[in-house]
Amino acid sequence: MQNLIAHLNFIRECDKLKTTLRKTKLICTDRYENDAEHSWHLALMAMVLKDYANTPIDLLKVIKMVIIHDLGEIGTGDVMVYHKTAADDEAEKVSVQAFFNTLPEPLATELMTLWLEFSDRKTPEAKFAAALDRLEPVLQNINRNGGSWRENKIPYDKVIAINGKIADGSQEIWNHVKAEIDQIEFDL
Amino acid sequence: MQNLIAHLNFIRECDKLKTTLRKTKLICTDRYENDAEHSWHLALMAMVLKDYANTPIDLLKVIKMVIIHDLGEIGTGDVMVYHKTAADDEAEKVSVQAFFNTLPEPLATELMTLWLEFSDRKTPEAKFAAALDRLEPVLQNINRNGGSWRENKIPYDKVIAINGKIADGSQEIWNHVKAEIDQIEFDL
Repeated sequence: MQNLIAHLNFIRECDKLKTTLRKTKLICTDRYENDAEHSWHLALMAMVLKDYANTPIDLLKVIKMVIIHDLGEIGTGDVMVYHKTAADDEAEKVSVQAFFNTLPEPLATELMTLWLEFSDRKTPEAKFAAALDRLEPVLQNINRNGGSWRENKIPYDKVIAINGKIADGSQEIWNHVKAEIDQIEFDL
Repeated sequence: MQNLIAHLNFIRECDKLKTTLRKTKLICTDRYENDAEHSWHLALMAMVLKDYANTPIDLLKVIKMVIIHDLGEIGTGDVMVYHKTAADDEAEKVSVQAFFNTLPEPLATELMTLWLEFSDRKTPEAKFAAALDRLEPVLQNINRNGGSWRENKIPYDKVIAINGKIADGSQEIWNHVKAEIDQIEFDL
């Protein structure tokens, strides 16, 4: 029962991810997305796109990663990937570690291990999960003819350099969306 | 490539779940929750609470179910569980079937099979997923001293009858939250 109280308190705290706003807007309406919606969309994308991964993946692990990958931002807020520094990454890691430490073991260690694996981008699962994390805002920005790229004056070369990492998870998906990005007028 | 276009179109359409509003408000702020945030929270709850299930469950299947369980509401909107009729259920089924049919096979059949299993509440995974689907608004309403129950004049007996089904997925969780519901003043 003691553990159940701690588990439910953690679940209640996670509610705050729904008020952590991102820099991209939804596809279907003109408002900024929050981290909880974003994380749900990535989990759905993992289910739909799993067969496009460069190498076979453990789908459950990918989904677990994307469900928890932004929980550190409850403490730090979202920083646009084009502006993110090593200090931002470190702050997010400290924040998420403190948050997971409010959980009983073995769950605290399990979630931190998943978070670090995602963050390191070395395993097939982490590469595919990271590709989805890039792909969702790419689809949103393609839909808005540049969207947050134009709004934040991110040049074409930087968009390609950052999002080209989608190819580490799925070359086929990157080839497809790269061609769509190339249709956008970057007026910089 | 033809399939990738269909898969990405489906993913773009799913964005609309972020604008389908529920009848309960967030724990951390005074606005109504949307179905995408709700679905993310259920997936996280499945990860955190899986060991409280009455019988061992296939976690990946539970998470897949909760990620897709509300997609029919893009077409029909959310109906409060206390007011839902057989006609509402049928409309949601027709809506989600048409939506999944926009996907190539075998994914269309896989998702509809999962959706029907969730809807039937017979397997251990469906019972646990349904318990989470009930538990999240219960936590929200406990946090607001009755929240949407009081707002919609749902009496105590109906709250207990509907949410008592949490026990089909986890007796331990139901025992705990039932005691918290009993602390609320139902002024009806």
